[in-house]
Amino acid sequence: MINRVTVSVPASTANLGPGFDAFGLALDMRSTYTVEILPAEEKWSVHFEGMGADVLNEKGFKFVSEVMDYFERAESVHLPPLSINVHTGIPLTRGLGSSASAIVGLLSCFEVLMNTQFDTGKILKYAIAIEGHPDNVTASLVGGFTIASSDKSEVAYMKVVPQNLKVVVTVPSSFLSTKKARACLPDMYARKDAVFNIGRASMLSACIFSGNYDLLSFALHDRLHEHYREKLVTGFREVSHAADRAGAYGSFLSGAGPSIAALAEPAKAEKVAKAMQKAMIELDAGAETFILDISAQGVILQTSEDVKA
Amino acid sequence: MINRVTVSVPASTANLGPGFDAFGLALDMRSTYTVEILPAEEKWSVHFEGMGADVLNEKGFKFVSEVMDYFERAESVHLPPLSINVHTGIPLTRGLGSSASAIVGLLSCFEVLMNTQFDTGKILKYAIAIEGHPDNVTASLVGGFTIASSDKSEVAYMKVVPQNLKVVVTVPSSFLSTKKARACLPDMYARKDAVFNIGRASMLSACIFSGNYDLLSFALHDRLHEHYREKLVTGFREVSHAADRAGAYGSFLSGAGPSIAALAEPAKAEKVAKAMQKAMIELDAGAETFILDISAQGVILQTSEDVKA
Repeated sequence: MINRVTVSVPASTANLGPGFDAFGLALDMRSTYTVEILPAEEKWSVHFEGMGADVLNEKGFKFVSEVMDYFERAESVHLPPLSINVHTGIPLTRGLGSSASAIVGLLSCFEVLMNTQFDTGKILKYAIAIEGHPDNVTASLVGGFTIASSDKSEVAYMKVVPQNLKVVVTVPSSFLSTKKARACLPDMYARKDAVFNIGRASMLSACIFSGNYDLLSFALHDRLHEHYREKLVTGFREVSHAADRAGAYGSFLSGAGPSIAALAEPAKAEKVAKAMQKAMIELDAGAETFILDISAQGVILQTSEDVKA
Repeated sequence: MINRVTVSVPASTANLGPGFDAFGLALDMRSTYTVEILPAEEKWSVHFEGMGADVLNEKGFKFVSEVMDYFERAESVHLPPLSINVHTGIPLTRGLGSSASAIVGLLSCFEVLMNTQFDTGKILKYAIAIEGHPDNVTASLVGGFTIASSDKSEVAYMKVVPQNLKVVVTVPSSFLSTKKARACLPDMYARKDAVFNIGRASMLSACIFSGNYDLLSFALHDRLHEHYREKLVTGFREVSHAADRAGAYGSFLSGAGPSIAALAEPAKAEKVAKAMQKAMIELDAGAETFILDISAQGVILQTSEDVKA
């Protein structure tokens, strides 16, 4: 029986402009999750370290127990007492998929501990049910650029690892809850706006799957969410323009924001990063800007120890 | 000076399920357009032969003169008296892009005659302005599978020629005007339906650009137009199911209908065609079913004669 498992799960950016609730991109920025089965008489414990650990040690317990409850119900099992350790390397509530990473990480650990195998399709289904949309969880689970589509009965995804592309991300010091960022969206959209996003998202998909980036700038435009969320995000317009001027292919709100991401050729990434960070400084807004690689891998099983019970 | 030009322009199917007003696929079924400059004292003439020639010789004049007017306004030129001959090989008002083919064909002839060159981007812009949406005209102009996106200021497209794919089309004997098929669509769509189509259209694009058809069936589903148009189209459900059961990847309303198209592996195309035709016969509905290749080329300049004036 496996008693202890550690997995590493990447951050992700989602939407990428037009691919609203469908596109995800795994980033080379990871959190690790270690779950250990405790003797039956012990109590379960959750401990966070790393980014946002102080907040999480106060409020993270509820989140973890929700994932746990979901897994127990879905699998009709009862988890034994567990010791859960999370090392967060992903900034929280910034639109970088920290909760998706945690859902995928915890489910992966539970799956390995209880079933000694790893059913990607099943984990994906569970993770989408908990998160509510498939974009970030798919990228975190399988890595690369992902297109995911789900409805009540089925879920499917396609993955490719984009080449010659860096992701430059400006992460503001201010938070933005996904709930709030979703509440500002309309329930209904004009046909022409839906058509606009269908065209651009399909082109973005074609660019990335073919490796031909000629129309990447054109394809990164959105009409379904960025415009509405812009007012909740300090510097979106300014940072976007700075990225464009510095030679990025284009930029977009990372997930629901407030982080702002740009895609750039590797040779231009540093110039783009400097321009984006400068734009935030000029607005007197606190922010940190990262140049990230795309993570080709999603969940990585780091260690699992077989201990005779 | 070039005095006479003949171009051949393919039919097309559009939307392909989720790619509403964005996707086009050029089909190996063509009309030819011959335009000749007449001496200044002669009157211009339009003559149709082939499919639907009787209707067109009555009503086609207006259509041709609209394209002519648009070209004259856009180019600030005055066309000389012309003799226009159209040989239609594309069934009319059946959702196979006959009007898109005609717009592209006529504009191409005018462009060659007046400017002795061929500016694809310009023709595309004009054709979209006349047709109102870019899907069919792009495929007719450049061939292959196309994703097009346009707004007031810009238009762009991507093209790929899909491999190992046949298009099986059931063409009912009944007409359906595009206008009527568009009037039955709602102006506004729920966010979840827009998201559904974004996901599926992006996957369809990824399937075709990567040549990996594993998720082609999954990707061919739509929520923005087929459901609304179904009631105007005899046998849509029955023919679709017949195609699926016979081993097609999936099927969709061709453009605005009433033709129904299925994508299939070449080896399965005949079985699919028979099943689709049989479904129409069982409904006592007149129809003809074709197995078509995808046309890799769009407009083909067939002859152009340099005659000294």
